[in-house]
Amino acid sequence: MPAPTLPKSVSKFTVSQPGDKNFKLAAIDPADKPCSSGGKTDDRVIVDQLALDLDVLQNRFWADKRFKLLVVLQGVDTSGKDGTLRHVFGRMTPLGVRTAGWKAPTEAERAHDFLWRIHQAVPAAGELVLFNRSHYEDVLVPVVAGTLDDEAVDERLAQINDFERMLSQTGTVILKFMLHISKKEQGKRLQQRLDDPEKYWKFDPADLQAREKWDAYQAIYERAIRATGTPWAPWVIVPADSKTHRNLMIATVLKKAMESLGLRFPPLPEELVGVKVK
Amino acid sequence: MPAPTLPKSVSKFTVSQPGDKNFKLAAIDPADKPCSSGGKTDDRVIVDQLALDLDVLQNRFWADKRFKLLVVLQGVDTSGKDGTLRHVFGRMTPLGVRTAGWKAPTEAERAHDFLWRIHQAVPAAGELVLFNRSHYEDVLVPVVAGTLDDEAVDERLAQINDFERMLSQTGTVILKFMLHISKKEQGKRLQQRLDDPEKYWKFDPADLQAREKWDAYQAIYERAIRATGTPWAPWVIVPADSKTHRNLMIATVLKKAMESLGLRFPPLPEELVGVKVK
Repeated sequence: MPAPTLPKSVSKFTVSQPGDKNFKLAAIDPADKPCSSGGKTDDRVIVDQLALDLDVLQNRFWADKRFKLLVVLQGVDTSGKDGTLRHVFGRMTPLGVRTAGWKAPTEAERAHDFLWRIHQAVPAAGELVLFNRSHYEDVLVPVVAGTLDDEAVDERLAQINDFERMLSQTGTVILKFMLHISKKEQGKRLQQRLDDPEKYWKFDPADLQAREKWDAYQAIYERAIRATGTPWAPWVIVPADSKTHRNLMIATVLKKAMESLGLRFPPLPEELVGVKVK
Repeated sequence: MPAPTLPKSVSKFTVSQPGDKNFKLAAIDPADKPCSSGGKTDDRVIVDQLALDLDVLQNRFWADKRFKLLVVLQGVDTSGKDGTLRHVFGRMTPLGVRTAGWKAPTEAERAHDFLWRIHQAVPAAGELVLFNRSHYEDVLVPVVAGTLDDEAVDERLAQINDFERMLSQTGTVILKFMLHISKKEQGKRLQQRLDDPEKYWKFDPADLQAREKWDAYQAIYERAIRATGTPWAPWVIVPADSKTHRNLMIATVLKKAMESLGLRFPPLPEELVGVKVK
């Protein structure tokens, strides 16, 4: 069961024991920069280098085929999920890398259990799959909407733990990132989407409604993270008011986790040694 | 029906009229470099710049959402499909970009028509899907194996034309690239896979068997391209003995095709103009 190895520098931001009552989301400052080297320019250069390192690691991961890698990106609207995909994963070849974005379930999807559509999208051997939102939305959204009672929430969170344990036991490395921004920063970013013609398309009026329920979302995020931070699928809370720091932290964690797998190019089968092509 | 616009420089390498009896695969020299600026180093710099341009275009394509884009990469083993994905598409964000690799159909897939699995993987609005091999394998392989008779081949090729026409009529821009290498170049590349520990994993003994049927593959490629080069889904034959030139030609064609779509960021809906975020 490949439990991911995380860098020591992020231990204060990691939740990996289910039922961790000590974890308080509000205790983490969205403006904190635990992985920063100091300057923003330096950090950007480091992110660019890390993105190249991750490309090399992913190429080896794809060749190796012993593991699967699932990266979950969660966070409120404008928290930087798309930006992370661009800056952390943008140097990888689209070979063995796939993004799955999750919107409100369709009627056909709602006719199944909430993990049904998720299961179809998990990575195969050698694949890296990036979840842009995830099965956690099926806890967050109905809880805030008031359509899932307390007992049902606990049941669903336990089902998630069982599901993720099974994925891990069958070879999937799971890393979950919660992109943590302040309400003020979100206000700024939503306004930018309304003001910048190249960002209009990203603006969804529903985001304003979700913003009105900010506290409710923070509360259920905390509860869900407490319940589902496990050794086999830890949560990393990423202070994300700084986009550069957000990228830096995620890339740093991912690099460490991938390096610790001891990836290798598979050897040549014995019967092929010495073969000459005619 | 968005028929792709192609650069004039590749017109001699394009098949876009079905039943084009003039097209002869053997008449195209795999070592030719119609898009080259002269030097290999210069060409590499241009490819890197084109890859960045394509990233910008793809980002806009994803925002625009009026079109779908399907890129088919075909070619014999070692012709450079993976390398194309890396060098031409490697600068794109994995957001709205997806690769679908096609292997021999599974038992469940064989229980359906040959386009069944293909249809499930075509791009949605705004998406760019890269077919690493494609439905054309379902003509090439059985013909060389002798399990598909002449009439059945014609029927299948006509079905492909109908299928691609429907995709085009419903908003899909289709570009098909045949990566054309010489038998000698393939021998060299296969040997490299046997000699380089970082390439062992790419070697498949079945590639040697396919190589023995080189002429049969070239013949059916020619027939398939003649029958399925259409205005709505043209074939571009890419001389691919030079990897740099291959990348250059594909990136050049793709850039022209994407630019000619008049992509734009969608406007802000009227009811959102002037809204201030609280």
